[in-house]
Amino acid sequence: MAKCNKQLQQPDTIKMKDDTVQLSDATHLSFPPESWGLTEQSLADVNNQLNETLFALGNGYIGLRACAEEGEQRANVPSLNGSYLNGFYESEAIQYPENAYGLARTNQFMLNVPNAKCIELHIEDEVFDLQRGSLDQYQRHLDFKTGLLTRTLQWTSPKGRSIRLHSQRLVSFDNKHLFAISYEVTPLNFSGRISLTSSIDSAVKNIEAGDDPRVGSAISGPVLHKLEVMQDGDFTATLHRTHNSGLCLATAQQNCLHTTASYTSTLQQSGEKIGQRFDVDAVQGQVICLEKFCSYYSSRDFPAASLLTTSKQALVMAQVQGFTQLAKAQRAYLDDFWAQADVRVSGDAALQQGIHFNMFHLLQSVGRDGKTNIAAKGLTGEGYEGHYFWDTEIYIFPFFLYNKPEIAKKLLEYRYQYLPQARERARQLSHASGALYPWRTIDGEECSAYFPAGTAQYHINADIAYSIKLYMEATGDTDFLLKQGAEIVLETARLWMGLGHFTRMRGQQQEVFCINEVTGPDEYTAQVNNNYYTNAMAQMHLRFAVDIVTQLQTQHAEDYHQLAKKISLDNAELDAWQRAAALMFLPYDAERGIHEQDDSFLNKKPWDFAATPKDNYPLLLHYHPLVIYRHQVCKQADVLLALLLLSDQFALDDKRRDFDFYEAVTTHDSSLSTCIFSIIAAEVGYHDKAYDYFMQTARLDLDNTHGNTHYGVHTAAMGGTWLGIAYGFGGMRIRHVHTEGGSGEQTRAQLSFAPVLPRQWQDYQFRVHFQGQLLELEVNQSHATYRLLRGNGVKLNHGGQVLELTTEQPVWMLSMPAQEPNHA
Amino acid sequence: MAKCNKQLQQPDTIKMKDDTVQLSDATHLSFPPESWGLTEQSLADVNNQLNETLFALGNGYIGLRACAEEGEQRANVPSLNGSYLNGFYESEAIQYPENAYGLARTNQFMLNVPNAKCIELHIEDEVFDLQRGSLDQYQRHLDFKTGLLTRTLQWTSPKGRSIRLHSQRLVSFDNKHLFAISYEVTPLNFSGRISLTSSIDSAVKNIEAGDDPRVGSAISGPVLHKLEVMQDGDFTATLHRTHNSGLCLATAQQNCLHTTASYTSTLQQSGEKIGQRFDVDAVQGQVICLEKFCSYYSSRDFPAASLLTTSKQALVMAQVQGFTQLAKAQRAYLDDFWAQADVRVSGDAALQQGIHFNMFHLLQSVGRDGKTNIAAKGLTGEGYEGHYFWDTEIYIFPFFLYNKPEIAKKLLEYRYQYLPQARERARQLSHASGALYPWRTIDGEECSAYFPAGTAQYHINADIAYSIKLYMEATGDTDFLLKQGAEIVLETARLWMGLGHFTRMRGQQQEVFCINEVTGPDEYTAQVNNNYYTNAMAQMHLRFAVDIVTQLQTQHAEDYHQLAKKISLDNAELDAWQRAAALMFLPYDAERGIHEQDDSFLNKKPWDFAATPKDNYPLLLHYHPLVIYRHQVCKQADVLLALLLLSDQFALDDKRRDFDFYEAVTTHDSSLSTCIFSIIAAEVGYHDKAYDYFMQTARLDLDNTHGNTHYGVHTAAMGGTWLGIAYGFGGMRIRHVHTEGGSGEQTRAQLSFAPVLPRQWQDYQFRVHFQGQLLELEVNQSHATYRLLRGNGVKLNHGGQVLELTTEQPVWMLSMPAQEPNHA
Repeated sequence: MAKCNKQLQQPDTIKMKDDTVQLSDATHLSFPPESWGLTEQSLADVNNQLNETLFALGNGYIGLRACAEEGEQRANVPSLNGSYLNGFYESEAIQYPENAYGLARTNQFMLNVPNAKCIELHIEDEVFDLQRGSLDQYQRHLDFKTGLLTRTLQWTSPKGRSIRLHSQRLVSFDNKHLFAISYEVTPLNFSGRISLTSSIDSAVKNIEAGDDPRVGSAISGPVLHKLEVMQDGDFTATLHRTHNSGLCLATAQQNCLHTTASYTSTLQQSGEKIGQRFDVDAVQGQVICLEKFCSYYSSRDFPAASLLTTSKQALVMAQVQGFTQLAKAQRAYLDDFWAQADVRVSGDAALQQGIHFNMFHLLQSVGRDGKTNIAAKGLTGEGYEGHYFWDTEIYIFPFFLYNKPEIAKKLLEYRYQYLPQARERARQLSHASGALYPWRTIDGEECSAYFPAGTAQYHINADIAYSIKLYMEATGDTDFLLKQGAEIVLETARLWMGLGHFTRMRGQQQEVFCINEVTGPDEYTAQVNNNYYTNAMAQMHLRFAVDIVTQLQTQHAEDYHQLAKKISLDNAELDAWQRAAALMFLPYDAERGIHEQDDSFLNKKPWDFAATPKDNYPLLLHYHPLVIYRHQVCKQADVLLALLLLSDQFALDDKRRDFDFYEAVTTHDSSLSTCIFSIIAAEVGYHDKAYDYFMQTARLDLDNTHGNTHYGVHTAAMGGTWLGIAYGFGGMRIRHVHTEGGSGEQTRAQLSFAPVLPRQWQDYQFRVHFQGQLLELEVNQSHATYRLLRGNGVKLNHGGQVLELTTEQPVWMLSMPAQEPNHA
Repeated sequence: MAKCNKQLQQPDTIKMKDDTVQLSDATHLSFPPESWGLTEQSLADVNNQLNETLFALGNGYIGLRACAEEGEQRANVPSLNGSYLNGFYESEAIQYPENAYGLARTNQFMLNVPNAKCIELHIEDEVFDLQRGSLDQYQRHLDFKTGLLTRTLQWTSPKGRSIRLHSQRLVSFDNKHLFAISYEVTPLNFSGRISLTSSIDSAVKNIEAGDDPRVGSAISGPVLHKLEVMQDGDFTATLHRTHNSGLCLATAQQNCLHTTASYTSTLQQSGEKIGQRFDVDAVQGQVICLEKFCSYYSSRDFPAASLLTTSKQALVMAQVQGFTQLAKAQRAYLDDFWAQADVRVSGDAALQQGIHFNMFHLLQSVGRDGKTNIAAKGLTGEGYEGHYFWDTEIYIFPFFLYNKPEIAKKLLEYRYQYLPQARERARQLSHASGALYPWRTIDGEECSAYFPAGTAQYHINADIAYSIKLYMEATGDTDFLLKQGAEIVLETARLWMGLGHFTRMRGQQQEVFCINEVTGPDEYTAQVNNNYYTNAMAQMHLRFAVDIVTQLQTQHAEDYHQLAKKISLDNAELDAWQRAAALMFLPYDAERGIHEQDDSFLNKKPWDFAATPKDNYPLLLHYHPLVIYRHQVCKQADVLLALLLLSDQFALDDKRRDFDFYEAVTTHDSSLSTCIFSIIAAEVGYHDKAYDYFMQTARLDLDNTHGNTHYGVHTAAMGGTWLGIAYGFGGMRIRHVHTEGGSGEQTRAQLSFAPVLPRQWQDYQFRVHFQGQLLELEVNQSHATYRLLRGNGVKLNHGGQVLELTTEQPVWMLSMPAQEPNHA
């Protein structure tokens, strides 16, 4: 057994904000407003499963819900002891009660993998069990700066033995396969036997799946089949293979006990639990510390045959580092992150907490290996089955692009990785060429089992193209464009020609390009014709594709030649793209001066909001889809999202009229909605509305306003929070400015800002990576201050005024314009 | 044991058209063209399951596929030994991979009930088995005049024993619970032991269901649970209860052996088979005849506790009658039917056979107890799970209305029976009042698990109202209107107000009534706005509802008062109905002069028919619904159906232009299509097209042109065949003629005809019940002859000319107009 040489420390005094905390019966927990963390001051009860989500740890690969090492022992307390790995999934055949050609055939779901966190604690003949004895002190804390989840408690057993327990947990940002636990027990009023059993529990299942008959029927028997078990001293590992997807997974642990007392160690196996027990002759007042290092290695990253030995090597290395060293590295990673990305708001501590919380969870959730992405619920729960959606490109990608661009690039690489599957899907939908990305997926196959609000949302193609355009503007990474980006954009652009066609609308003479039978972002209408968002984004997409070809032809002729040959692209296609973009039908109601969500939206029956009881929201849980689809009612931003993404195509008055119209018919039943409304409200001068919608976004999970955070956080709303600050109050957009270059007139992407300050705040500040620079904008009532934090300098636009940050003049402090009257 | 006193007869000589018939390897069986029957001249092989459908017997309650009494013994020969009872179903929860509010929750499917036909035959130590020995002669015959299914064969066993087998089967039209078999065996070249085992086999299952995972997963264990078995001499019965729907069923048999030889009888039970064995000391050349009387009684008709005793009483009665008497009654029933309904076509024997075949199967399939209806596949197979659709009202109802009006009334009573469920369904779809009939159902609940081509087909309400309107015009049955019809029409009319609304279309000033988010008859477009058929039929429906109210208010004020009170109807609703009908939006393309199938149909992308391989039809098996929905392509008649049903609202030129346009974009992938195209073609003067489309309809099942008749016949196309004759070539329509009555101007329904004769025929004739009269129209090249067969006289219209058939002048012979040139 390896000798562990950690310096033992006496336990810290627990700093409790309320020393009299007891088991809480409160049905709603709130957290003290603190900038850099989240503290639970009493043991959660009805909110237990919710808090397991909120306090979850992750590193973009591993996600661990914040369940105690001992598991949830209390009966009738909701809990989901989930451990997840980004991209590690089981698949299952989708069964339709009425089948049709081309429907998605196989679902994939993020698997609840073996639980390696387990530590059971016995004191003499008594088990440590919060259902019994008395909990004298309790605190759980998630720290956004250190990345540690800490639990500190004091407990007295039924027979009167008191202990202090202090556990810390981290999921390593440096090694995606690794997490570690420091588990300290101190006998306070006795000396005697303390036993710690550290194990891996493979008796896990997906709670969602268990409740879902389609999974139950599709999977015959357990998902994980045990292939091998390895026990060697302090090292224990299991090797499993999934039943249908055939993926292999090694789950491993390495224990290291620190104690001055004598102890024995025994290997344990009981049912699906396997591990190691330490029996310690504990001495009153002396800390016993079990450091536990755990890893997950799967065949998605390494050959199956090597997984166990790779695990062992990694855990030996981790043990050599020790928990303290790993915690230092974790802190360093986060220091760097916050130095680049921190957003500060003064005047609202709860909001500041929400903003940091959201950014921290985004960082914890995002895949960054080019093979994985960011799920709708991150790695914190099983809602939406761990699927990736357009949420990534439109709501989350900008956060990474402007704060950690290397991760943003990995998200695009993920899409390139699955371009072959997107091509195959286009073939299934009878397109002779081109590619169609899946609406929801893990490993690239369409997993949407309800195509009207799934495959019909063809705008996913344009959303991905848009994110590549944004990436190119913000980074100028031509290498990516040549190797991956151009191929994605051109292949996906082709689909618009397969979908749309040139025709004349009723009573019109001029030919237009129409795209029929699509579903736009708003899922309360489905299978419509000429969805504004889809058509406008398709126009952008086609033009961007033509621009790329032009750029490559002139500047990278040989690369272009190779690519065009690879995908059999000819010039006739380009002509068609240009013509389709030029003639794209963009429905506009001249009388009302608003953009129509689709051909028929304005002719739909108005929803009777006055007669709709509050309890009937979200509508989708109370009305048949046909009822919802028939009415003029929106779940979320649709036209408004186009106003944001294609901002410079619209006049401010148009935006205001659109806002007024669509606000009146939108329920915001989707968590993707309020952030966009906030941004447009800020732009058109509806400052109070901007603030209100922003606040609904920023603490959506912390306040569980959608009532389903126990199934996982809402990563899109978390991304939307950052968008609300930067795009909304900061008014940040990319403008294209004309420049005279050697080869004639060119356009160049330039950041512009039009900051406003909500009257509820003293000031706010955020940072932006752009074209290799790191900038900061700080806004208070009197001034907007721009700072160049890294880089050689950049020109930018402040409310129409061009200014240049340079190494010589790295700071510009500009007066804020008098705030326009609030129109709302 | 009861003594049976049937007169034994020596076996008939088998009349074979080809004495050298052997086991056939032919992959396609055709049948000799005969007017009144269907003959299989060699044992079917690959077509076995198809022929089990075609030769099936039924009486509107019991349906027996034409499987041999011994069952299908041959391995690798497709067979479905199905016995069905109209309205006797099992239910199962519908599992959706993505659920939504208000979706149909429970499916019902027509159950394969215990097989009571079983007779096993042993000759000494050899089993009668067509896989072994030699089949020396074989013939199976279905007789449309006697209603008998007859099988005659001569077989020599491996050990050289030859027998003749002659079985006859009937399913009683007089007693819906009863069927009977006469099974005659004659030893030809030996005397010895012949054993006949007559039994009920409960080891049955639904083949479709077994292949369908949703049924497998929804049903835990067997569907039929045995409650009781009764054996008493020649009587055997079983009592079962279904697992989910909780229906009870008694299946019973009564055997009666006729032989001059000595024999013994033993009761038998083996697995799920229970019955009686007769061991006969047979004498060469002497016929042994087993008469077997069988019954099905279910708790849908009688108290569960009485089912066994009721069965016994019925079978004792049947035995007293004997097979011969039952066969006479069957013949008498059919004689009466054909006397009322016969359709004759001279010049095409195969077509004449198809017409009789279709009419015969309609009569066999239709429920006539007011609790059951007619399934899409009748009682001949499990396709569409035994569900009733709009097919009844639009395709099949007129056949019964004009040929057996008492059955037509029962079909309407069925709808009234399930009006409470239709009200409940409307509530589920958030309509505060009114009723919505299910798209597919057995006992009144919506069973459509794909709502875009299910619940969205709201036109079902108007279809039912239309059939009531037709019924009233053809029968004047005010009693039905007062008791049931008015309530159905008014409650269903209400739904249009819940669905539609008044609005202005883009660029238009005038307000119109729009109905959005519906699916019309054509299932290759779904969830469209202002489907022409739906809107036009809704207009008819609303006007009919107002007419009914007006009529009842003036003529039956007290009845109306009661009804209005019962359904809380007030005059404001009537005003709204009138306004909606008046402003109904009926899309019309003035430039092309055609009616638009819906708001967007003409703007859809044209389907590339030239590039579509033949094997890619039907499209629904080769293209994703989104691909089909996006294109300008029709599965079936949609606008054209409106042209037929609302015939007098359209000018002939409009009809011709519509035909030209929609013909070019219609695949006829639905079996509901060609009959309508035939009728409109006949009307607009496209005689060859009318003939071709009619021929595709009339022998659809006999020639298995849709390739799926092994799952059951296509009852709608069978009804469509009659429509093709009467509405198509006969040009029969109901016109409203103005009359001066005591209470001012009134309109009166009058039959009009505009007969044409396909050049392929010498003549044709059909009969029509109308307002208590029975008429006949005979058409040949020179003359159209109208005959009053029963009744006091009636006025009718022949090509614009009014003539009156009276008891004094019961025959009018009129010259046929010179046939217009064929435009097609």
